[in-house]
Amino acid sequence: MEKTNAVPGDYVELSLVNRDYQGMLLETPESEKGIVLLKLDSGYNIGFVKKEVIEVKVLKKFSEKKEELEIKKDSGKPNVAMIITGGTIAARLNPRKGGVDWLDNPESLFKFYPEIFNLVNVSKVEVPFMKASEDMDFKDWQKIARVAVKLLNDPNVKGIIITHGTDFLHYTSSALSFFLRNLNKPVVLTYSQRSIDRASSDANLNLQCSAIAAISDIAEVMIVGHASENDDFCFAMPGTKVRKLHTSRRDAFKVINGKPFAKVFPDKIINVSEYNRRKKGKVKVDAVFEEKVALVKIYPGQNPEILDYYSKEKYKGIVLEMSGLGHAPGRRARNSWIRKLAEIQKKGMIVCATSQCINGRTEPRIYSNGRELLETGIIYLEDMLSETALVKLGWVLGHKDWAKNRDAVKAKMLENVAGEISERLES
Amino acid sequence: MEKTNAVPGDYVELSLVNRDYQGMLLETPESEKGIVLLKLDSGYNIGFVKKEVIEVKVLKKFSEKKEELEIKKDSGKPNVAMIITGGTIAARLNPRKGGVDWLDNPESLFKFYPEIFNLVNVSKVEVPFMKASEDMDFKDWQKIARVAVKLLNDPNVKGIIITHGTDFLHYTSSALSFFLRNLNKPVVLTYSQRSIDRASSDANLNLQCSAIAAISDIAEVMIVGHASENDDFCFAMPGTKVRKLHTSRRDAFKVINGKPFAKVFPDKIINVSEYNRRKKGKVKVDAVFEEKVALVKIYPGQNPEILDYYSKEKYKGIVLEMSGLGHAPGRRARNSWIRKLAEIQKKGMIVCATSQCINGRTEPRIYSNGRELLETGIIYLEDMLSETALVKLGWVLGHKDWAKNRDAVKAKMLENVAGEISERLES
Repeated sequence: MEKTNAVPGDYVELSLVNRDYQGMLLETPESEKGIVLLKLDSGYNIGFVKKEVIEVKVLKKFSEKKEELEIKKDSGKPNVAMIITGGTIAARLNPRKGGVDWLDNPESLFKFYPEIFNLVNVSKVEVPFMKASEDMDFKDWQKIARVAVKLLNDPNVKGIIITHGTDFLHYTSSALSFFLRNLNKPVVLTYSQRSIDRASSDANLNLQCSAIAAISDIAEVMIVGHASENDDFCFAMPGTKVRKLHTSRRDAFKVINGKPFAKVFPDKIINVSEYNRRKKGKVKVDAVFEEKVALVKIYPGQNPEILDYYSKEKYKGIVLEMSGLGHAPGRRARNSWIRKLAEIQKKGMIVCATSQCINGRTEPRIYSNGRELLETGIIYLEDMLSETALVKLGWVLGHKDWAKNRDAVKAKMLENVAGEISERLES
Repeated sequence: MEKTNAVPGDYVELSLVNRDYQGMLLETPESEKGIVLLKLDSGYNIGFVKKEVIEVKVLKKFSEKKEELEIKKDSGKPNVAMIITGGTIAARLNPRKGGVDWLDNPESLFKFYPEIFNLVNVSKVEVPFMKASEDMDFKDWQKIARVAVKLLNDPNVKGIIITHGTDFLHYTSSALSFFLRNLNKPVVLTYSQRSIDRASSDANLNLQCSAIAAISDIAEVMIVGHASENDDFCFAMPGTKVRKLHTSRRDAFKVINGKPFAKVFPDKIINVSEYNRRKKGKVKVDAVFEEKVALVKIYPGQNPEILDYYSKEKYKGIVLEMSGLGHAPGRRARNSWIRKLAEIQKKGMIVCATSQCINGRTEPRIYSNGRELLETGIIYLEDMLSETALVKLGWVLGHKDWAKNRDAVKAKMLENVAGEISERLES
């Protein structure tokens, strides 16, 4: 490789014998001195042997512009409050690492995408913490709920937007669906799959559509994000019926066993299904949570003794992500789960069942394995998602008065509290 | 309810005040004397209060016809061998229970669907066991492999069809993909989601398309089943890239991170993607398996001490089904997984990572959590499915000579042995 004036962060073109590559030059790690690292537009890092690089052309110098907060106030537009919690949507590429870092100043995400100000007036910004969503737990969901309720009960706020990491966004949307009772206004969670300084970022459309959803009539907790890989419109998806289904695509979130509330464009919203409407009255927070709940995915030949572990560790409830209509290895299996499941439930453990098929409803009455599992006392959660089920179980068991009574827990788990159970279609 | 001559098993019409219902009359359980139970055509059981039923009309009497094996031999057609292992495709409704039971005589499934004999000559039928697939484990996969290899190495057999339960069918298809080395002929796994005595059964199309696939040029382990809810054609899906994604729909199986090999109709096959072709040579069985492997799905706030349990129980390998691109709670989480993961790997545990997003590729280098997890030694399995990964890990660790060397295990896990890893598209 020739001498070059390119520095990490510059957008460059590398010429090799057979092909040219464009991307952001990254710092070469200490351990790989002979390598040139490039971040391609696709987001992937690729390494080249220095000797094989014929030329490095700088296409655009890196500018580490100082990020300054400059929220334009416009009282003529509807007021929307924002809660920034971290995630890729509040991160930018660090050319020294090839990965992304949080924005030093969270509000500077507006610098990248000022279009949101054409739609709404961002009247308040709260930053309870900056985290990747996989680092969050129920205490973070509680913090967000407490910040959210103040904003929702402020008559000058029309709706709220929460920006969030993607990995466990659907857990937070479930938690807020249960925690925020008597919801009066839209609570929109949004994200980006690619950091906001990248040309291919999905943040802009998601933020604009979130603004439209936040001032809409939909008084629900929802995730708003790309409806397809095209950068044209978003879906507003029910907070308890949505799941991250792709590691990298912009339309990573899909509604499962249900329909979006609406199609959302940067300039309009088209309703698709039923929802609760905006109303008067105060939102209440009911954010109790029993930490000792677990999610266990069943696989062939799995040893049921794992249940003893949870029992010994004083877990109060388990969601079993079962096979098909809701099965685990039964009496004819080498490692039957039936006896152990009966045993731990007798000792007081609450066991719920969802399906690892993701789509469709559990139905334990069709096959003998299902019937025998049902007889042990397992609560089959209809078509509830496993992730939603775990959150709901923690929430239900967090209520001391419900938790002391097995029947009350069962009744609550099977009550459709926040859209988490779809109506059974009789056909 | 008036007196009626209807008996359990009869197909009846119940008249209520507002509506009529048709279905199979089921036996009323002892505990629910005042109830009439009906199995609707949709497969769901519905109960009516006897007093509210105005009339019961028998539309078709139940006939418990004696099932006799009558396999029509026709040496003019290509020979296909069948392995019957249980599952719904080898079950029929038991009107006394409202559930299904195995066929007394497994081969009698041909009585229900003789159309397969128009296409092929079923020259051999093997029944190693009759099980629901959720009751199976690696020993059953080994049994099937041993039966299959004999049939595949018989020059008079053109291909084989394995009928199987649906719940864990994709585990068996993965296992056979690794166990059957140097595959020379088609190995078709098929199923039905509804028992074969129901009008809506999907068995007929699946069996016919399986016959077409079994005499095709595709020398791969594949699942053949409905491509959509319509009863018109099937997909032949790669055994390591397929997953049950719906609890009840006929098109429950979907190819993930890949393409079907072919579209299969009852009278033709249309190739869709690359595959290995039929060839000379003997198939070898390499069906070793290390039983001490586990699959663990990560959720927010999860306590990493579960890893100590697996360590104490002398597990040799774990597949972690992680969030997003391949994350678990990191250093900024209340319960970080980093230290514990480093610790158990130092002690010799093999830890692999897949994504619970199901679709897309893992990529640990983009975020700091991913990079720190990668540094602990975790093997990121590209776009491999979690279910396939668990089977492959058991298979790889079953090889004593590979298992004693960490690098050899890693190399094997990242080698594309049976189509389980897609090529990375550089874009």
